[in-house]
Amino acid sequence: MQNDVLLTNVRPMAGPATDVLILDGRFAAAGTAVPPGIATVDGGGAILTPGLVEAHTHLDKSLLGLPWYTNEVGPRLIDKIENERRVKVALDIDPARQSERQAILSVSHGSTHIRSHVDVDTEHGLRGIEGVMATREKLRGLIDIELVAFPQSGLMIRPGTAELMDQAMQAGAEVVGGLDPCGIDRDPKGQLDVVFGLAERYGRPVDIHLHERGEMGGFSMELIIERTAALGMQGHVTISHAFCLGMTDRTYVAELTEQLARNCIHIMTTGPSGTPCPAVKELRDAGVVVCSGSDGIRDTWGPYGNADMLERAMFVGQRNNLRRDDEMAIAFDICTHGGAEVMELEGYGLEPGSKADLVLLEGESLAEAIVTRAPRRLVMKGGKVVAERGRCIVEAP
Amino acid sequence: MQNDVLLTNVRPMAGPATDVLILDGRFAAAGTAVPPGIATVDGGGAILTPGLVEAHTHLDKSLLGLPWYTNEVGPRLIDKIENERRVKVALDIDPARQSERQAILSVSHGSTHIRSHVDVDTEHGLRGIEGVMATREKLRGLIDIELVAFPQSGLMIRPGTAELMDQAMQAGAEVVGGLDPCGIDRDPKGQLDVVFGLAERYGRPVDIHLHERGEMGGFSMELIIERTAALGMQGHVTISHAFCLGMTDRTYVAELTEQLARNCIHIMTTGPSGTPCPAVKELRDAGVVVCSGSDGIRDTWGPYGNADMLERAMFVGQRNNLRRDDEMAIAFDICTHGGAEVMELEGYGLEPGSKADLVLLEGESLAEAIVTRAPRRLVMKGGKVVAERGRCIVEAP
Repeated sequence: MQNDVLLTNVRPMAGPATDVLILDGRFAAAGTAVPPGIATVDGGGAILTPGLVEAHTHLDKSLLGLPWYTNEVGPRLIDKIENERRVKVALDIDPARQSERQAILSVSHGSTHIRSHVDVDTEHGLRGIEGVMATREKLRGLIDIELVAFPQSGLMIRPGTAELMDQAMQAGAEVVGGLDPCGIDRDPKGQLDVVFGLAERYGRPVDIHLHERGEMGGFSMELIIERTAALGMQGHVTISHAFCLGMTDRTYVAELTEQLARNCIHIMTTGPSGTPCPAVKELRDAGVVVCSGSDGIRDTWGPYGNADMLERAMFVGQRNNLRRDDEMAIAFDICTHGGAEVMELEGYGLEPGSKADLVLLEGESLAEAIVTRAPRRLVMKGGKVVAERGRCIVEAP
Repeated sequence: MQNDVLLTNVRPMAGPATDVLILDGRFAAAGTAVPPGIATVDGGGAILTPGLVEAHTHLDKSLLGLPWYTNEVGPRLIDKIENERRVKVALDIDPARQSERQAILSVSHGSTHIRSHVDVDTEHGLRGIEGVMATREKLRGLIDIELVAFPQSGLMIRPGTAELMDQAMQAGAEVVGGLDPCGIDRDPKGQLDVVFGLAERYGRPVDIHLHERGEMGGFSMELIIERTAALGMQGHVTISHAFCLGMTDRTYVAELTEQLARNCIHIMTTGPSGTPCPAVKELRDAGVVVCSGSDGIRDTWGPYGNADMLERAMFVGQRNNLRRDDEMAIAFDICTHGGAEVMELEGYGLEPGSKADLVLLEGESLAEAIVTRAPRRLVMKGGKVVAERGRCIVEAP
């Protein structure tokens, strides 16, 4: 078979060195006979882990590969939203090309799955959705891309957006997105009814950007929890950013956390250094699944980011004061299994029968891999090599 | 002369490309005749800036180059202090070797100056001071190292430490250090009288670690301000970390800030993501000099850090929500001129007559240099090449 390979001298999850047999693109059970003449790949003693999971980014609007964009945008969220919509055309931010560039960068860093929010608005219509879907097809076999139809410019405040969101779901977006029902849309009931209505109609998950802080964010979160419970959507709803969980009223945060756990609502945090944000250990201890992502990379919102989910694990670790090796493992788990659970991936992991979507990391320990972030030795998707020594097998456009 | 060189095709502070003449290790005035036969170095269109300034680190206790240290330390500050003192011998953290490793790493990343706090305690005596002083001599001409005698384990709670601090100053430490006069020493008046007493006796500056948060930290800060004013030490006192300036009572913070500015007391911040911390724009707007540093790198306190002051500029930028290009320039200034001012460096900068301590950065803009952090094209110390393409000209031990 094309995707049969014996991966020699690798250390699963930084444990003892071993050989790992991959048959038909999946991990074989221990003790399976190695077929004669099988291709071998030398793992060089590297750490073997499942592929990194980029569970929150915006593939359609990175500026990667374009001339440097001098950022002069205003301080408010709405400044950044309006500036972006305006300059998308001027800067020629082609969603197909830009998503391909970023996705290839992700592959080079060892990500095997991406959840991308993609802008849907009345000015650019489904251009973003179509562009990222083209990239998804083009890179099939290299990386899996899931699309969230994302009403970046607001849903209720821009009539016609709800209809476009519906079209995006028909066109093949897998997840219904949302954004600050109070802060941006000024109509939390209205927006959330539309978002959950679409989710119900298409039988798809929900992933809502919630930048709202403090008690206002808590209120929006309560509305999301109520709808999740009412529609029986437990396990299929993610709240991204959830800055309100960083508020100082920890009693209220504990109440919200308990409700999130009871309704299997997931939290995505980038580990932002400049804002209050969820405490990942508290959430996980309460049973809430936590994932992470790069968010915007080199876009009109800001210049940071490189699509490296090991760097993201460092940010999450630093933000949550994770220092001990057992704590660093939490940051790593968030950037792998956490994302896989949120994306409801089938066959993710290193267990026999799981898909051989994997990365080989340099370092003695997972913690060392996170803090050094050396170029990835090898990345495989379904047992096929897709990146080596930090370079994807295909060139970015 | 050995240190005469014509640096061609460089872009000072990301401005237009030009050639820069260095004579006798210093920048020549514009229009100075280029001596015939002078050595030339091709800058390849890179950005030219003064050398990066690592204004707060701990050269004596990094674990760089040692086997991976599995961190299992407890959560309190004192846990980390006691754990470190205990394992210094067990792990063979030789201050001379370890400081040489870290300083060479700094050179490779474009730092030309380091202020290093160095542990002084009754268990290890002046071993750290002697080790870092040996490295200072060994690397003379590659990087300048300034030593702060630092009572990491406490000054008042460990009798004998004050005498060792005195000996450290006699031995050649340039700055008197201190640490959490309330939180660690439980005797703020006692500690600060000793610290400022040493500073007065030796005519040296002061740099105090102040992790104390909220109102307690504000109280310690007031005591430092009072002594600075009383001794006429304006311009020679730095408060490192100053987490208390991140407290929510912004009226009190504004009062403290005003007093810091009036007494020319400097602030060092690493841009920590997990703790309240100073707001750099507020401080600079008030006239306070702000510098930054890596703090501990890969030590028993935690695994993070790589001595790259461009990465530090990114952290400071992210922590302070600096996104626009003009804001990114603030982060860069903190990691260059801010550090130079705190260290009271003579001849720092790109002006004619300044020392040719410089780095060539890849990128269209300073912001791009910060977010991409490509290996440094070239680093010069006094007009002499000390690192090229991310590698120091000498190997670490």
